[in-house]
Amino acid sequence: MTRPIQPLSPAMAATALPPVMEARRWLEGVTFPPERPLINVSQAAPVDPPPAPLRQAMADAVLHEDAAHLYGPVLGLPDLREEVAQQFSAAYGGTVTAAQVAITQGCNQAFCAVMATLAGPGDEVLLPVPWYFNHEMWLRMSGVGVVPLDTGADLLPDPDHAATLITPRTRAIVLVTPNNPGGVEYPAALVAAFRDLARARGLALIIDETYRDFDSRSGAPHDLLADPDWDDTVIQLYSFSKAYRLTGHRVGALIGSVARLAQVEKFLDTVAICPGQIGQRGALWGMRHLGQWLAGERAEILERRAAIESGFHRIAAQGWQLMGCGAYFAYLAHPFAENSAGLAQRLVREAGVLVLPGTMFTPEGSELGARSLRLAFANIDRAGIDTMFGRLEGLPPA
Amino acid sequence: MTRPIQPLSPAMAATALPPVMEARRWLEGVTFPPERPLINVSQAAPVDPPPAPLRQAMADAVLHEDAAHLYGPVLGLPDLREEVAQQFSAAYGGTVTAAQVAITQGCNQAFCAVMATLAGPGDEVLLPVPWYFNHEMWLRMSGVGVVPLDTGADLLPDPDHAATLITPRTRAIVLVTPNNPGGVEYPAALVAAFRDLARARGLALIIDETYRDFDSRSGAPHDLLADPDWDDTVIQLYSFSKAYRLTGHRVGALIGSVARLAQVEKFLDTVAICPGQIGQRGALWGMRHLGQWLAGERAEILERRAAIESGFHRIAAQGWQLMGCGAYFAYLAHPFAENSAGLAQRLVREAGVLVLPGTMFTPEGSELGARSLRLAFANIDRAGIDTMFGRLEGLPPA
Repeated sequence: MTRPIQPLSPAMAATALPPVMEARRWLEGVTFPPERPLINVSQAAPVDPPPAPLRQAMADAVLHEDAAHLYGPVLGLPDLREEVAQQFSAAYGGTVTAAQVAITQGCNQAFCAVMATLAGPGDEVLLPVPWYFNHEMWLRMSGVGVVPLDTGADLLPDPDHAATLITPRTRAIVLVTPNNPGGVEYPAALVAAFRDLARARGLALIIDETYRDFDSRSGAPHDLLADPDWDDTVIQLYSFSKAYRLTGHRVGALIGSVARLAQVEKFLDTVAICPGQIGQRGALWGMRHLGQWLAGERAEILERRAAIESGFHRIAAQGWQLMGCGAYFAYLAHPFAENSAGLAQRLVREAGVLVLPGTMFTPEGSELGARSLRLAFANIDRAGIDTMFGRLEGLPPA
Repeated sequence: MTRPIQPLSPAMAATALPPVMEARRWLEGVTFPPERPLINVSQAAPVDPPPAPLRQAMADAVLHEDAAHLYGPVLGLPDLREEVAQQFSAAYGGTVTAAQVAITQGCNQAFCAVMATLAGPGDEVLLPVPWYFNHEMWLRMSGVGVVPLDTGADLLPDPDHAATLITPRTRAIVLVTPNNPGGVEYPAALVAAFRDLARARGLALIIDETYRDFDSRSGAPHDLLADPDWDDTVIQLYSFSKAYRLTGHRVGALIGSVARLAQVEKFLDTVAICPGQIGQRGALWGMRHLGQWLAGERAEILERRAAIESGFHRIAAQGWQLMGCGAYFAYLAHPFAENSAGLAQRLVREAGVLVLPGTMFTPEGSELGARSLRLAFANIDRAGIDTMFGRLEGLPPA
C-alpha cells in the first residue's frame, strides 16, 4: 500500500487531494457528544431528498419508460435541452436555442468538458481568487496554467486588473456568480465588463451559475444573453443539483455556441457517452413543475443568509469579518494568528464545527487563504446558525 | 453557426467526431421500406430495458431511499465496491479488496480517469489496432501519443512486437478482451505475457473487460489477479451496462491499487463528484440477484455468435473474411475495392444495413481499416442475422 506508484502523471501528482474528503478525515477520532453534535458547514449540498412528486416522476420513468434505461443522445435529452433554452431565454431576455444547450453529468463535468475544448498544456486561464477548487484541480491535472486573479476586500475581481494578466497563452476567464466560495453576487455591469474584455481579446468567458436559483436579486443577474452575438464569447454553466435536490443524479447544463458544443460533444462522448437518464428526467420534471416550490426554497435560503448577516455581530467584536455572503456561502476572515487550515481542524475539535479553510480555495501561500474560511450555511436553519455563532464566539485563540 | 470558434484547443480540434453519431447521420434522407427495415448493427448496446425486478428495485430506491438522491462517496457505494471485490476475487481466483475497487459513471469514464493518472502530453500509450475509438479519442484530446500496435490476421497483438515499440515516454499498454471491435478473446497466456512485459518495463497494463460476461470460455479468462502483486501493474476495467442493461445509467468499475485509486479519486471528484446513485443501486441489485438471468443472456449472445459463424459461409465465397467473432462483435474484411468508409455508407443505401467502418477503429491511412467493418450483432436475433447475410450476399461491387 505504501510503495510508490508508477507511472504517475506529474500533472496529476501536482493536483491536490479533494478538499471535501480531506476535511472529512479531520472528523476521524473526534467524538461529538449528543448535546453538542457536529455542525457540518463544509459541503454545499442539500441534505434532503427531492419533493415526493419529483421522486414519483422519476420512479415512473424507471418503471414505465424503457428509454430511461438506454443510451440517449450525447448532448442530452432533446426535451430537457429545449426546456433549458426556453427558460433561460425568458429569464435572461435573450435567445438561447436548444442546439446551444448541452446536458452534462453535473456542472463539474460541464466545466471540464468545455475547458478541454479551450485550453491544453501551456495555455492559461484566469480564475478569480478565492476559486472553486474543482476548477483549479481540472486545470492543474490538465497541465493548464492557472492565473490567479486577486479580488478586493469585496471579493469582486477587477476587469482592468484582469487585462494586465492576459498573455498570448490566455484562453479563458472564469466567473462563478453567485460565487463559490465567496458568496458574493457579481453585479451585472461587472459581468458585462468581463464579457467586453474577453471579446476584445479573443477569449472565452465562462460564467458558472450553479447557484443562480438562490441569487437575491430579482430579474436577470446579467444581460449577456440579450446580446444577439453572445455565443461568440459567453459560455454559461448551470446545475440542477441544488435547485431540485438532485445531487446524487448528476445533472448539469452547458450553454454555448453550436460550434463549441460540437467540440464538447467529443469530450462527453468519450468520458460519459450520455448523461444519466433518470436524472435528466427528474430535472425536466422539476423545471416544468417545481417553479413555485423552488421560489420557496430560495426564500428559505435567503432567510438563512439574513440570519448569517444579522447573527454575525456576535463574533464581529472579536475581529471576525464577513467578506461575502450569498447563495449557500458565507466567506469569513478570522481574527486568529494561526493559518486557516490549522484553525479549521481546531474548530472540529474545540467547537464541533466543520468548515473548509481558505487555503483550499486559494493559491499556495495566499495571505487571503490563510486568514479565511468558507461556511456553507444552506443546510443549517436559523437555530443552527445561532448555535454555530455561539460556538465561534466562544472559541479562544490557539 | 459557420464562423470559426476560438479559442479551440489544438488537441481537441485534432480529435475525431464521435463515430456513432457520424454513422447515424448517414441515415438522414434514406428511407427504409416497411418490408425491408434498417438493420442497425452499429452500436454495442442492449436495446431492451433491464428485467422488471431490477427496475422495481431501482424504483424502490428512488421512492424510499433518501440517500439515493444525495451525493455519495467519490469512489462509489461501499456495498457495490465490496460486491465487485468479492465476485472478482472468486471469479479470477485472486484477492481484490473493496479498497481496490472504484465505481465510475460508465466504463469510458473509468478509462479516462485512470489514464489521466498515467499519461499526459508527450507521453505514449500502446493501443492494439483495431482499437476502441473512445480510447483513442481520450488519448488524442489529452495530447498523449497513441502508438498503434498492429495485430495479425487473428487480430491478436504480439508482446514481442509491442516490446519494440516501448520508448522512455511509454506509460501504459491497453488490452480490450473480449475485444471491441475485433470480437476476439485474448488467450490467458497472451494477457500474462503482456503483464510480464508491462511489469518488466515499469508500465501499467490496462485490461478493459467490458464484455467479460459474454466470454465464451468457462472459468477465469486470465489469471492475473491470482498474482498477489497484481496491483503493481494491472488495472482492470468493467462495465455494468451490457450485463444488466444499464447503459442509460452509466455505471462502470475500475480495479487497481489503493495508491492508484487515490489519484483516480482526484479525477473523479473533479469530473463527476460521485457516480449516479440510482445506477449504482441497480448494479448492486443486479450483481446480487441476476446471476442466473445473466447466464441466460450470455447463452443467447453465444447462440447469436454461433449464428454469425455458421451463416458467414453465405458471403465467404464472395471474398468476405471473418477476422474475429465474439462478445457483441464480428469483425469482417470485405472484398470490395472501395474504402470501408464509403462501403459503410453504401451499405445503408443499398442494403439497409448500418455498420461502422474499420476506418473508425484504426489510424489514418490504415490498410486494415480500409478493408474491414465492425458488426455489432448482439441486438439482432438469428432471423435478423440471416436477413443481414442475405443483404450482404446480394450487394454488388461499387
